Amino acid sequence: MRKKVVVIGGNSAGMAAASRAKRLSPDLDITVIEASRFISYGICGVPYFVSGLVDRQDELVNFTPETLKKQRGIRARTGVKAHEILPGRRRVVCRDLSSGEKLDFEYDQLVIATGYRPTLPPIQGVDLQNVFTVSLLEHGAQMRRALDSGECQRAAIVGGGYVGLLMADALRSRGIEVYLFEQGRQLLPQIDEDMAELLKVELEKNGIQVHLNTRVAEFRGEKGTLQGICTGSELVPCDLALIDVGSAPNTELAVKSGLAIGQSGAIQADSNGLTSLHNVFAAGNCAETTNLVSGEPAFSLLATSAARQGRVVGENLAGMRSTYPGTLETSVEKVFGLGVGRTGLTYRQALENRFDADVVSIEGFDRAPYYPGGAKMHVKLVFGKPTGRLLGAQIVGSEAACKRIDTLAVALSCQLTLDEISQLDLAYSPPVGTLWDPIQIAANVGLRKL
Amino acid sequence: MRKKVVVIGGNSAGMAAASRAKRLSPDLDITVIEASRFISYGICGVPYFVSGLVDRQDELVNFTPETLKKQRGIRARTGVKAHEILPGRRRVVCRDLSSGEKLDFEYDQLVIATGYRPTLPPIQGVDLQNVFTVSLLEHGAQMRRALDSGECQRAAIVGGGYVGLLMADALRSRGIEVYLFEQGRQLLPQIDEDMAELLKVELEKNGIQVHLNTRVAEFRGEKGTLQGICTGSELVPCDLALIDVGSAPNTELAVKSGLAIGQSGAIQADSNGLTSLHNVFAAGNCAETTNLVSGEPAFSLLATSAARQGRVVGENLAGMRSTYPGTLETSVEKVFGLGVGRTGLTYRQALENRFDADVVSIEGFDRAPYYPGGAKMHVKLVFGKPTGRLLGAQIVGSEAACKRIDTLAVALSCQLTLDEISQLDLAYSPPVGTLWDPIQIAANVGLRKL
Repeated sequence: MRKKVVVIGGNSAGMAAASRAKRLSPDLDITVIEASRFISYGICGVPYFVSGLVDRQDELVNFTPETLKKQRGIRARTGVKAHEILPGRRRVVCRDLSSGEKLDFEYDQLVIATGYRPTLPPIQGVDLQNVFTVSLLEHGAQMRRALDSGECQRAAIVGGGYVGLLMADALRSRGIEVYLFEQGRQLLPQIDEDMAELLKVELEKNGIQVHLNTRVAEFRGEKGTLQGICTGSELVPCDLALIDVGSAPNTELAVKSGLAIGQSGAIQADSNGLTSLHNVFAAGNCAETTNLVSGEPAFSLLATSAARQGRVVGENLAGMRSTYPGTLETSVEKVFGLGVGRTGLTYRQALENRFDADVVSIEGFDRAPYYPGGAKMHVKLVFGKPTGRLLGAQIVGSEAACKRIDTLAVALSCQLTLDEISQLDLAYSPPVGTLWDPIQIAANVGLRKL
Repeated sequence: MRKKVVVIGGNSAGMAAASRAKRLSPDLDITVIEASRFISYGICGVPYFVSGLVDRQDELVNFTPETLKKQRGIRARTGVKAHEILPGRRRVVCRDLSSGEKLDFEYDQLVIATGYRPTLPPIQGVDLQNVFTVSLLEHGAQMRRALDSGECQRAAIVGGGYVGLLMADALRSRGIEVYLFEQGRQLLPQIDEDMAELLKVELEKNGIQVHLNTRVAEFRGEKGTLQGICTGSELVPCDLALIDVGSAPNTELAVKSGLAIGQSGAIQADSNGLTSLHNVFAAGNCAETTNLVSGEPAFSLLATSAARQGRVVGENLAGMRSTYPGTLETSVEKVFGLGVGRTGLTYRQALENRFDADVVSIEGFDRAPYYPGGAKMHVKLVFGKPTGRLLGAQIVGSEAACKRIDTLAVALSCQLTLDEISQLDLAYSPPVGTLWDPIQIAANVGLRKL
């Protein structure tokens, strides 16, 4: 009899696990269960669908259940929500969300890839119409419909994380007036305050009204429809709102089924992806992993980490013994005309993790100063003393230049020191760089602090 | 008394050595001797000055002798050619090229940074007017004048190296009809034939007539002026020609002064930059170093390697004990709409160096397929068997994407395997990448061959 694999969650981690397992062991009988209507889509693409830069929603979708079956031999059930795992009986109890029918899936091996869940602030009005979060493809479609209807003129974004900033960009590009409220003293907690300030300036340059240190107290509505946002002191009228005050691993099913939850709040999983239940794996945003720099338990909300962790679990489903080393939280985003890349620990995180850390920031160029079309490139390196070992890096500059964060992510993976970074043989030509890459200029300047 | 440092050669390596030494030891009395009229310029910028993309020649110049003296406290003598080193007397015998005056410079420490010299094919007519090589800023000015005069309509490029391709681009952008002749069976010997073919297609798409396997037998002229180029079979009329059939370390002064020449043909130098003569260093394109992958003696014609080697020599001039580890020959260039990046060994070079090598090539995208403006990205990895250790990499794609060769240069420096590359935590967002970076897709596909 063919071994049955059930994968709960049909995106980055789940799809990577299912695809990798099936490729290595074509005999596996794999079923992917997904609560939403879509599988295998890029949630990262939603802002570009909302803005209209991407015309059709289906451009964001890699596989439908039909093409997945045909091209990869993997079955997918959408609109089916897993409610409980019965490990003794090796079954997942589910419900078909449209018919209400109870469904039961038997497994030999199970993968939990339930992703993340946006945090909702505990205030009134979060359930009003046109108050959105972005965690499903459907949310993008809803926002786009709201915008296409022409009824939205003013939008409030609550929270200055990546999603908030990307949506501010998307909404502004459609001519919407945009207010952004962030409770903390800076945007983007994933980077340090000085770098986040560069993003704030970029937002403001593009007409976004940014309010830091500002708590939203209530979404005010009438007959279920959003009318405005109340901060302590004022009422800001708006007809669309987006909440991005944080996200957390979606552990609902795991908790209900008695799985161990790790220190980070995500489902406990070892480097093979195995949870506390026999033959049950977890992967992706819902699963615990290790921060490669601090060595501490962590979860990642990135699609990249999810896909890599999922791939490792897929190999283990197929009988290999693969390990996922952990995450550096390497990311890059484009916000209006600026890119922002980061990897490893910020200076703040390094101090919180009790590293004897120092920091260097420089301003370079992404191409030869005489070559047309160039932009400034801000590079910040966080390093340990007295060794000069890299602990993290941040880049703000043109979007393509910020992909250079990868260079530093590899350096970080290999535990290079500033001295070793200074000696790297990096590429140069006037249209794409400077003789001394800004990364190396930063390393050279940082060396003076050791 | 202040220690006297004489640096022969006022570009990448020489300037890096002088500047670094002076910064670390402000007391040093440093003189830079340069045979040409300019110091501290980017020879890599010449094609963009010829094309007119860069308006003024002085935009390519970082320092004049005056600003170098004022800002860095370093003396420079231009138009002065070093003829011989007298090590017993610690003197360099020079001649002022304009006055003919003999000059004598005393040194405590000497740096030879005489760079490279373009090879001239042993055929008739290389001395005709409007037959150029590119090794000095002056050459760019001469070509630009020839083009600005409006008398040039058809150009022949002899040799399909980087300079040849960049100049083909520059000339074409000025409306010149361009013929390119390459004796070998491919363009760009620094990359493998399949990748070079992509560049050939790009050249042809842009109207360059590319002739491989074609030897130029003669530059034909009349009254000293170029009329055309003879291949064995035909006479191609042209009024401007550029020679790029290769370059070699400029070792003339070193040979005349009795310095040891290394196996590679460059001036023998250890990892500190010390030559066979006491207190005499060599750095840059004229100096021998090590290929970091093969471990063999090598020289590099890249400005980046020269600058890094020069910096190390500068530190040693100041009494440190710095070492230059060697070169990966990492480079990136933009040719018309394509970029090309490379690092380490090509497949051909790996076989020549007796590695048990294999290769993987994939075609990916430089951003999410649904995100506008994307381009294909061809990634080729060369790796050793059975370990999967990376030996070299090549990328052809959009210019900014090719800067990702740096990611692979670091991986190569750290001797990563395909497996480790597959696990790297690289950045993604739709405008600048794909969920699985093409670099990792290549590593994943390559793993199947192990």
